[in-house]
Amino acid sequence: MTFYVDLNSDIGEGFGAYTMGMDEEIIKHVTSINLACGWHAGDPLIMDKTVKMAKEYGVMVGAHPGYPDLMGFGRRNLDITPDEARCYMLYQTGALMAFTKAHGIKLQHMKMHGGFYNKACVDEKLANAVLDGMEALDKDVILMVLSGSYIAKEGKRRGLRISEEVFADRGYNPDGTLVNRSLPGAFVKDPKEAIPRVIKMIKEGKVVAANGEEMDIKADSICVHGDNPKAIEFVKEIKEGLLEAGIEIAPIDKFI
Amino acid sequence: MTFYVDLNSDIGEGFGAYTMGMDEEIIKHVTSINLACGWHAGDPLIMDKTVKMAKEYGVMVGAHPGYPDLMGFGRRNLDITPDEARCYMLYQTGALMAFTKAHGIKLQHMKMHGGFYNKACVDEKLANAVLDGMEALDKDVILMVLSGSYIAKEGKRRGLRISEEVFADRGYNPDGTLVNRSLPGAFVKDPKEAIPRVIKMIKEGKVVAANGEEMDIKADSICVHGDNPKAIEFVKEIKEGLLEAGIEIAPIDKFI
Amino acid sequence: MTFYVDLNSDIGEGFGAYTMGMDEEIIKHVTSINLACGWHAGDPLIMDKTVKMAKEYGVMVGAHPGYPDLMGFGRRNLDITPDEARCYMLYQTGALMAFTKAHGIKLQHMKMHGGFYNKACVDEKLANAVLDGMEALDKDVILMVLSGSYIAKEGKRRGLRISEEVFADRGYNPDGTLVNRSLPGAFVKDPKEAIPRVIKMIKEGKVVAANGEEMDIKADSICVHGDNPKAIEFVKEIKEGLLEAGIEIAPIDKFI
Amino acid sequence: MTFYVDLNSDIGEGFGAYTMGMDEEIIKHVTSINLACGWHAGDPLIMDKTVKMAKEYGVMVGAHPGYPDLMGFGRRNLDITPDEARCYMLYQTGALMAFTKAHGIKLQHMKMHGGFYNKACVDEKLANAVLDGMEALDKDVILMVLSGSYIAKEGKRRGLRISEEVFADRGYNPDGTLVNRSLPGAFVKDPKEAIPRVIKMIKEGKVVAANGEEMDIKADSICVHGDNPKAIEFVKEIKEGLLEAGIEIAPIDKFI
Repeated sequence: MTFYVDLNSDIGEGFGAYTMGMDEEIIKHVTSINLACGWHAGDPLIMDKTVKMAKEYGVMVGAHPGYPDLMGFGRRNLDITPDEARCYMLYQTGALMAFTKAHGIKLQHMKMHGGFYNKACVDEKLANAVLDGMEALDKDVILMVLSGSYIAKEGKRRGLRISEEVFADRGYNPDGTLVNRSLPGAFVKDPKEAIPRVIKMIKEGKVVAANGEEMDIKADSICVHGDNPKAIEFVKEIKEGLLEAGIEIAPIDKFI
Repeated sequence: MTFYVDLNSDIGEGFGAYTMGMDEEIIKHVTSINLACGWHAGDPLIMDKTVKMAKEYGVMVGAHPGYPDLMGFGRRNLDITPDEARCYMLYQTGALMAFTKAHGIKLQHMKMHGGFYNKACVDEKLANAVLDGMEALDKDVILMVLSGSYIAKEGKRRGLRISEEVFADRGYNPDGTLVNRSLPGAFVKDPKEAIPRVIKMIKEGKVVAANGEEMDIKADSICVHGDNPKAIEFVKEIKEGLLEAGIEIAPIDKFI
Repeated sequence: MTFYVDLNSDIGEGFGAYTMGMDEEIIKHVTSINLACGWHAGDPLIMDKTVKMAKEYGVMVGAHPGYPDLMGFGRRNLDITPDEARCYMLYQTGALMAFTKAHGIKLQHMKMHGGFYNKACVDEKLANAVLDGMEALDKDVILMVLSGSYIAKEGKRRGLRISEEVFADRGYNPDGTLVNRSLPGAFVKDPKEAIPRVIKMIKEGKVVAANGEEMDIKADSICVHGDNPKAIEFVKEIKEGLLEAGIEIAPIDKFI
Repeated sequence: MTFYVDLNSDIGEGFGAYTMGMDEEIIKHVTSINLACGWHAGDPLIMDKTVKMAKEYGVMVGAHPGYPDLMGFGRRNLDITPDEARCYMLYQTGALMAFTKAHGIKLQHMKMHGGFYNKACVDEKLANAVLDGMEALDKDVILMVLSGSYIAKEGKRRGLRISEEVFADRGYNPDGTLVNRSLPGAFVKDPKEAIPRVIKMIKEGKVVAANGEEMDIKADSICVHGDNPKAIEFVKEIKEGLLEAGIEIAPIDKFI
């Protein structure tokens, strides 16, 4: 039996004269990118350039729509309606599709960003609105969501292509949510700890939660970061560890 | 020989809590709409609702991308580069395509707005960048541009689908540009004058410029407005006049 | 004993090409205006024009800062930090002060808008941050807040000038908050009911809550609206009722 | 006779999660800062923090208003009206004044940014509108403008406080404008050349233009940059050179 996993990273998060992250470095180490669509970050020139770069590196492209809150980088909760969730997602995903289409590649997936991701993965009304939107737009585009969340289950029930995402560097609560960044156990910073952890997720479908209990988890894609040289190093080590464990690293489109 | 003409109008120009124009009224009288894409006006909810409405009325939908200047309604000149022109157009057009796709209709055309239209129709570098973008995105989408402009000629030379647009209520300079709004002869407000004028454009391919000279003009589509009850009345009269003259009013997709 | 009350209304809520409300009509009937500062609504040209108009009518001007959410008109909740609350308020209030100063009038008050008002009046951390900001900026500027709220009490304890605001057309819960717009008892639309209600607030400091209980309330200023002709009519009737009851209508600066 | 000169630098140019420049380093080497006001760059938290930092270092603060074009960093020309120029400047300057007031320091000056600076210093209508605004707002606030420009002359004629600004690292055309960045002679990158050049400007009021001609120039303030370590080094060398030449480096408020 072959085990597969995808490595994804948020990139294209600059805006105008502003740059962010080490895009050209991290893109070499992942199989899928989540590309900011101009609302919480990103702009048309960056989207164009990043799609071109992804094509050159053979990396799959996903839309990364966020809240209309550049000042807060899309991280702050904003009370939007289900209709707004659906339309905000469609708008940004469509905007990126113009660039993937113009560069002759497909849009592999859509993954919401920050506060939008946190809320729409678990809030039933928002989740269903987002699923409605994706279903109407293109059933071939994969929805990348929080592993085990409501939207993952309901998306599968509807027959949509769902990629369940896990975090290599974050601790989990027993209910499958991430440990809040301000609490102990929020982060797993040592690759020596993180590597066996993700291998266990992929091969056994299990993770040890912050309270010590073992819980079920599905790991189609691992979210990694390219913010700084240390983050890049972490990704390289994770990748090496996965390969040594015989896990095949491939874009979700290959195995979902 | 049958003469065809399309009637187009800019709609969906509200934003958030703001409304503008009599969209539900004017849409009944035109064959194509230019739908604002969120930059100079419009937002995802309005785009969604307006695409749905266009589908119900059987009216064809076009993208109406503008400058990133909501405060100036996209009317003020902004010095953008050719690359920005191409990417700004793609971003907004793609955003709208998500809604047309989700509602199961095609995007008929793309027409730039305000300052973007004025500049990119005549500036060779910007025009070519916009043409490059459309060519890469989808050759089936018609480009609606100022009749006789550089972009019209170059677009045809490239084999793209080009719709040459005229204005029923505006005066022309002998070089094919519109008479500046602040000068005498800028407007043709009386339908009794406007109707024979557009009929002559369609049937003879001629118009009398502000200096009295007759000049060539191609009229695939006539731009009309739905700002107020009087504007709606003007459109109804134009339409009646065209029908009486035996001209067939149809969306550009039918005859371009 | 003389009873005083101020009538306030939100105005200057257009943006660029968009207009909203009947500003020139409502301004004749109020003593204080809350002027949008460019974030949830309003722009520099409108602020300039509206300050000029207020000066001509002898109406007092207040800043009306909101969330950075033009698309949601500042009504949606946005999770901001206390530091953001303080700085967002200062930024917008300062922006308006440039116009009051340039026109030679004083800034009478600051009243938060929409979601910002709802949250920062009752959330202790946000309330204190806003009070810190006002205290540092100018102790002479009155803070107009929800009657009976935490910020009202804490502001008075600090010795700041506080104006407690009531709503002529809204029902109250027994805890002093407004009945949710979706529930029965949310609105008091009949002036015949609203007039004795506000008179009782002003003269007796009491109001009957939605559950029938009588509760304490302080009414320094009554919020009224100028959205449409009916709203303007409602204001005229309220005003007449107050005058007939011997209540003096004056800007808060005169009696706070 | 004592010669004075001010050293100014643009800072506070981050936005939300984005950072730009080495603010904490460059602020140690200048006497005045131009602080972005949220339109082309900057946000309320950054403005608050930077005003606090300037106070700690004893550096004078100026407003740095720009075009409403974050995506273009305020560098692209935007056709605004004189009224817009006046109101955009007032809005942003007032916003910053809230922070200087809250921190108990004065606003020393106002210097426009990028495209706004380039146009409003030389376009008579825009210049006069900006001067009208400053005159109405506060005659004590110094206007920092391009040396020898129309706005400099007209501002002085009106009796306003004007600081004429020069650029240590840029070449001049014989008409006093800067050599376009794309042409030879645009930059003076070697401190060995730049130092005698600015000393000559300050002591003799002369500079050698790109065509070799000597022309008059007034140097009240020298614009320097803090973008990178090399730029910081350049500033240190310029400063040392000025001090060795017996020139006193002081904020413009001390000698204008």
